[in-house]
Amino acid sequence: MAAPAPLSPLAPKKYPALPAIRGVRFATIAAGVRYAGRTDVMMALFDRPAAVSGVFTRSRCPSAPVDWCRAQLKGGKARALIVNSGNANAFTGAVGASAVAHVAEAAARTIGASVSEIFMASTGVIGEPLDGTRIARVLETLVAEARADGLMEAAKAIMTTDTYPKIATARVKLGDAEVIINGVAKGAGMIAPDMATMLAYVFTDAPIASGALQPMLAKSVERSFNAITVDSDTSTSDTLMIFATGAAAGAPAIADAGDPRAAAFRRALDKLLRNLAHQVVRDGEGARKFIEVNVHGAATRKAARRIAFSIANSPLVKTACAGEDANWGRVVMAVGKAGEKAERDRLAIFFGRIRVAHQGQRDPTYDEAATSAYMKRDAIEIAVDLGLGRGRATVWTCDLTKEYVAINGDYRS
Amino acid sequence: MAAPAPLSPLAPKKYPALPAIRGVRFATIAAGVRYAGRTDVMMALFDRPAAVSGVFTRSRCPSAPVDWCRAQLKGGKARALIVNSGNANAFTGAVGASAVAHVAEAAARTIGASVSEIFMASTGVIGEPLDGTRIARVLETLVAEARADGLMEAAKAIMTTDTYPKIATARVKLGDAEVIINGVAKGAGMIAPDMATMLAYVFTDAPIASGALQPMLAKSVERSFNAITVDSDTSTSDTLMIFATGAAAGAPAIADAGDPRAAAFRRALDKLLRNLAHQVVRDGEGARKFIEVNVHGAATRKAARRIAFSIANSPLVKTACAGEDANWGRVVMAVGKAGEKAERDRLAIFFGRIRVAHQGQRDPTYDEAATSAYMKRDAIEIAVDLGLGRGRATVWTCDLTKEYVAINGDYRS
Repeated sequence: MAAPAPLSPLAPKKYPALPAIRGVRFATIAAGVRYAGRTDVMMALFDRPAAVSGVFTRSRCPSAPVDWCRAQLKGGKARALIVNSGNANAFTGAVGASAVAHVAEAAARTIGASVSEIFMASTGVIGEPLDGTRIARVLETLVAEARADGLMEAAKAIMTTDTYPKIATARVKLGDAEVIINGVAKGAGMIAPDMATMLAYVFTDAPIASGALQPMLAKSVERSFNAITVDSDTSTSDTLMIFATGAAAGAPAIADAGDPRAAAFRRALDKLLRNLAHQVVRDGEGARKFIEVNVHGAATRKAARRIAFSIANSPLVKTACAGEDANWGRVVMAVGKAGEKAERDRLAIFFGRIRVAHQGQRDPTYDEAATSAYMKRDAIEIAVDLGLGRGRATVWTCDLTKEYVAINGDYRS
Repeated sequence: MAAPAPLSPLAPKKYPALPAIRGVRFATIAAGVRYAGRTDVMMALFDRPAAVSGVFTRSRCPSAPVDWCRAQLKGGKARALIVNSGNANAFTGAVGASAVAHVAEAAARTIGASVSEIFMASTGVIGEPLDGTRIARVLETLVAEARADGLMEAAKAIMTTDTYPKIATARVKLGDAEVIINGVAKGAGMIAPDMATMLAYVFTDAPIASGALQPMLAKSVERSFNAITVDSDTSTSDTLMIFATGAAAGAPAIADAGDPRAAAFRRALDKLLRNLAHQVVRDGEGARKFIEVNVHGAATRKAARRIAFSIANSPLVKTACAGEDANWGRVVMAVGKAGEKAERDRLAIFFGRIRVAHQGQRDPTYDEAATSAYMKRDAIEIAVDLGLGRGRATVWTCDLTKEYVAINGDYRS
């Protein structure tokens, strides 16, 4: 295993305190799944069945726990979530599916739940059989040690090559009551032999039904985790789940995602997921710059999104940002290759507020020195106005540095 | 301007002699378009109108000369081709179009041709106005100095950050006569501030009509230049053209692409374009490994192609190859994210002849030491069998190295 990468220069300067949420407790343990000398299994334990919803990787080769979670979500109730790092349990065939079932059955027995109320995720190396007994045998200890204030430790246990834990919290009105939303994530920090995986878990004491959580999550994810890219690669294990214990005192039960009493909750969920997604990007392998790509004036919203991703995924744009080079010619190239409608003579390109290209030509007022100074910032905005319609989209990415290649090009050992 | 990159370790060890082709002569000159102290304009001069055909970038923001060539191709006849390096004449608006027209008119006047018989290309920095007078004023000298044996010098004049010129030649029977096919290309060698551009030109003395050249070229390009990728980025200027002087003694005139007398010619064209395309990949920025990706057993040919490109464009696969790491988990990831039908339990993955994964699991017979030895080669094959159908595709790429980032992340200056 390669040495851990140094802390990302884009890491948060401070962390919020995570308030306890009624109805859920957390525990972690060093189970020795793969790593030695660190916690590698976390459990979230729900005192009563929590409402649950989730979204998963679009990979056609998903991991065994992703298959499991998709199947169990139909029940809409969760008693426990178990996540291990060190082994992704992906491309492990029937052996992988058995390992998941083995752990789920052991957990259900231990806490007196149905197997359909047990959710799981695995992150780490692909293609190595997961020894489920290593997880099953620590379940009793995890249950015995679960604490309401254990979420920060849980965030650390699911890290693989992340250089920092990712957490966020919000307090928001639901009806006349106050509810809490806590979230944790692990990101696309990959060191050979580990496969990048994005995992994110949100916990709330709001009494929101599973059927209402799903559309809320689907909407929020479009403008957060589905609007980020580190290197265009998609893991076999990406998972985002939300659990609602419903234990908040005095809060109204929400059965419909559109319920006006949940408007503040929806906004807070949007913001919290965006915050976590940005933390993932800021911890992208070798990242030195956080890049926001804004496309507007596209023919449609879908076209704007494709163009934005074409820019955000372009190795030439990303290396230019790493080199602090306002190379708008590469942005033109990325717009052109997206395959969406674009007219050269209507296109304008901005770095921050500096318009560098306008109506198919270099902007004559463009100040190279001011632009160079702008490119030295930690956070850069690239904006494109296509001048065609009202479609707009925002996506976030990081730069492509030599450290990315070093991190991902090391020998597996 | 950054210092030129050192010769690619994947450069050809020797070059073939390029035989002269009747009916076409070449000249080069140092016109000072941008570079100092090197040739930067080349001309191909046809004694009589040559049949011409071409394919161009799919970019929605093509360069001014690409727009020009597309429009002139309708005539199907060429008297001259003029290519400059140092300035791409892309994203230069009306000024760019005027520069092209200015050069074309000057060339037509100089040689007594129609402007529709003048073809052009530009490669270099994007967004800077091209001063067409610098090219127009050297045209008479170029015409006066054009020589039948000047093609190798022409190949050098169109290089930007290529580390070697790319040439290929073939002799082939057309009917009972022998004809020659010569080709030159410049590749995706990009150093800030230069934009990558792929240019390739094929010259033959075969008497093949423009209407027959187009389908031949379209077919050959699918398995050559449209089956390579360096970094998934598409230039605004990519151009591939073929010129047939028809001056070969005794060769039958070919009016139809399917003419059986042209079978050997078609095969030779296929092979020559593939050879040039491979040379482009081998000179990809920072390339240390040449990678062939073979996908078979896919549901359709199109699916095979998408999966092959998903693998070939994956930064994680490419950095693994740079690190000589047989990281098949990343190949699984790339298959999964392609969005095409794939069944984990039928998938097999090979590095060279070594099967590393089989039926959804690591191949139990897989020898890590033999695989590591294989990964040290200059040329690597990654093969995937989806086990679903008969769709197959082959694409070629290179690895992603720290040198790629260094080359493309340098400051523009």
